[in-house]
Amino acid sequence: MLSNEYYGQASQGPYEYYDLGNFALEEGGTLRGCRLAYATHGKLNRKKDNAILVPSWYSGTSKIFDLAYIGKGRGLDPTKYFIICVNQIGNGVSTSPHNTAGAGGRGAFPRVRIGDDVRAQHELVTKHFGLTELALVTGGSMGAQQTYEWAVRYPDMVKRAAPICGTAKNTDHDFLFTQTLMDAISSDPAYKDGWYASHEDVHVGLRRHAKLWAVMGLSTEFYKQEVWRGLGFSSADDFVVNCLEAYFLPMDPNALMTMMWKWQRGDVSRHTGGDLKKALARITAKTFVMPIDEDMFFPPRDCAAEQKMIKNSELRVLKTNCGHLVVNGLDPAWLQQVDDNLKELLSLPV
Amino acid sequence: MLSNEYYGQASQGPYEYYDLGNFALEEGGTLRGCRLAYATHGKLNRKKDNAILVPSWYSGTSKIFDLAYIGKGRGLDPTKYFIICVNQIGNGVSTSPHNTAGAGGRGAFPRVRIGDDVRAQHELVTKHFGLTELALVTGGSMGAQQTYEWAVRYPDMVKRAAPICGTAKNTDHDFLFTQTLMDAISSDPAYKDGWYASHEDVHVGLRRHAKLWAVMGLSTEFYKQEVWRGLGFSSADDFVVNCLEAYFLPMDPNALMTMMWKWQRGDVSRHTGGDLKKALARITAKTFVMPIDEDMFFPPRDCAAEQKMIKNSELRVLKTNCGHLVVNGLDPAWLQQVDDNLKELLSLPV
Repeated sequence: MLSNEYYGQASQGPYEYYDLGNFALEEGGTLRGCRLAYATHGKLNRKKDNAILVPSWYSGTSKIFDLAYIGKGRGLDPTKYFIICVNQIGNGVSTSPHNTAGAGGRGAFPRVRIGDDVRAQHELVTKHFGLTELALVTGGSMGAQQTYEWAVRYPDMVKRAAPICGTAKNTDHDFLFTQTLMDAISSDPAYKDGWYASHEDVHVGLRRHAKLWAVMGLSTEFYKQEVWRGLGFSSADDFVVNCLEAYFLPMDPNALMTMMWKWQRGDVSRHTGGDLKKALARITAKTFVMPIDEDMFFPPRDCAAEQKMIKNSELRVLKTNCGHLVVNGLDPAWLQQVDDNLKELLSLPV
Repeated sequence: MLSNEYYGQASQGPYEYYDLGNFALEEGGTLRGCRLAYATHGKLNRKKDNAILVPSWYSGTSKIFDLAYIGKGRGLDPTKYFIICVNQIGNGVSTSPHNTAGAGGRGAFPRVRIGDDVRAQHELVTKHFGLTELALVTGGSMGAQQTYEWAVRYPDMVKRAAPICGTAKNTDHDFLFTQTLMDAISSDPAYKDGWYASHEDVHVGLRRHAKLWAVMGLSTEFYKQEVWRGLGFSSADDFVVNCLEAYFLPMDPNALMTMMWKWQRGDVSRHTGGDLKKALARITAKTFVMPIDEDMFFPPRDCAAEQKMIKNSELRVLKTNCGHLVVNGLDPAWLQQVDDNLKELLSLPV
């Protein structure tokens, strides 16, 4: 195990753990003493029909929802809903390479799939919280991948779904992008196949990884219009170093690698022998597919193509000049659009 | 000096050399025995008013125009025009790190700017060919940067200009993208600050660099629609390895680094104290600004913003699902659009 304060209660909490015991993974590995970290907001009602599940995205934790998405009068309103923000496996807070004891930790952490996360979350919400339905599952990016997986795998449970800036089946282009992110880290000699002594040793690789996010994670207009000024930065370079590099530097490289391997392979058509249409036809949830207009790797047309395969769905394209990373709360006007859409979706009878 | 067959006459020829002697660069370095390699097609007429200059793009040489752009009935028609295809400094064929003798070669090759290229080319066309005007300057990507530089620096000489998929002033976003390309090479321990014994030693860095091109150089639709099938590849991976990696692997890393440093800093507003509007107002050439619709780093809106600052100009957006790298001749329908636009531009009186 490696210590890493970034993932502790002081930074990412408050969160609680649900213990899954030994959790067997799709790819054949087993997580011994697997724990899901989660945070809840609001109260479960008597009918147990007001629960919302929000899985985390790449590099994100449950904390960001607390900071940027949840509030009275917001889409995720804790005065109305019981909101469960769950950390995906390998994100550094739930069971992850750096916090796994024994032989299966760090560079030996097994491969995890989106389906593993959703099975683990299913156990959390059914066994721990005793839920038989979710009023809404929503998440951005890898959270959208988990949202789709939920809606396809457990259609009877998911009443509404709002996948934001993500796809049900990852594209070849996105796979390639993710590979460049992974290569940026693994090519740092200090990464040592995951056997570094401290994540700080791998800062050069983490910085290169952050620079790729600078290219693909925002938008050309973000830089053209110097949107970084409004975020408190003095230049594009200042933004890259003191926002993006600063964001990724405290993270565990093995955690990022675990999530990226998973991200690359998000694909609900694994349930239907590769037939995406058939997989998405399983979805019964009322679904708002919510891509971001300037997203460079989950472009609206890719999301729209999937939306057309979902019976009870609408396409809601969100506008911002911040691109994909807007999910971190970069643009209040974008958050307002998310809120408006979630409120509308939640108001629809199911 | 390092030998590298890729840049020889057998691969990139036929080309000739023009000797500039010692050529002092904007950044302070001097290229001792600087040579521009160029290829010509067609014949100069008596009035010497049918010359077209075509500078090369990043990683490209004069050869690609021969292979994909020049022909009877084409936009670049050698039966009507005297076409000079010139290799930019540092591209491996003209004076470049690997072919420079003495102390200033390889890892010590000096920094070169777009303005240096255009001054050198100006000497070639005026002193060597005795030209006082160019019927057209056209080029793609870094060739567009040189085209803009020509039209701003020597407005009286340039009668028509057709910058294709490039900008007059490089954007912050494009700078960041180029930086990731450079980092992919320089982070390879085998690169040794440019002092590798053979370009083959740096193949890992060159492959990573190629993978970034796979993400940004095509388009999401290129992969979605599996356009690579029509190009003779069996999968996206096959395309990345056996087209893109194969394309870049024979090249000299220092040459690529020299061009990228130059690319990052392309900016005609250096002539006007940073005032882009004022710089572009100098252009008297009839100009067709020709961005590519799916270009991920020279997007049409960036090109359109510049076009609006050029008096005698029109915006002609070229359509293809191949993205930026279409310039290598990936899409015949795109080449047809280039031909049509160049023919129209050349038919306009000046």
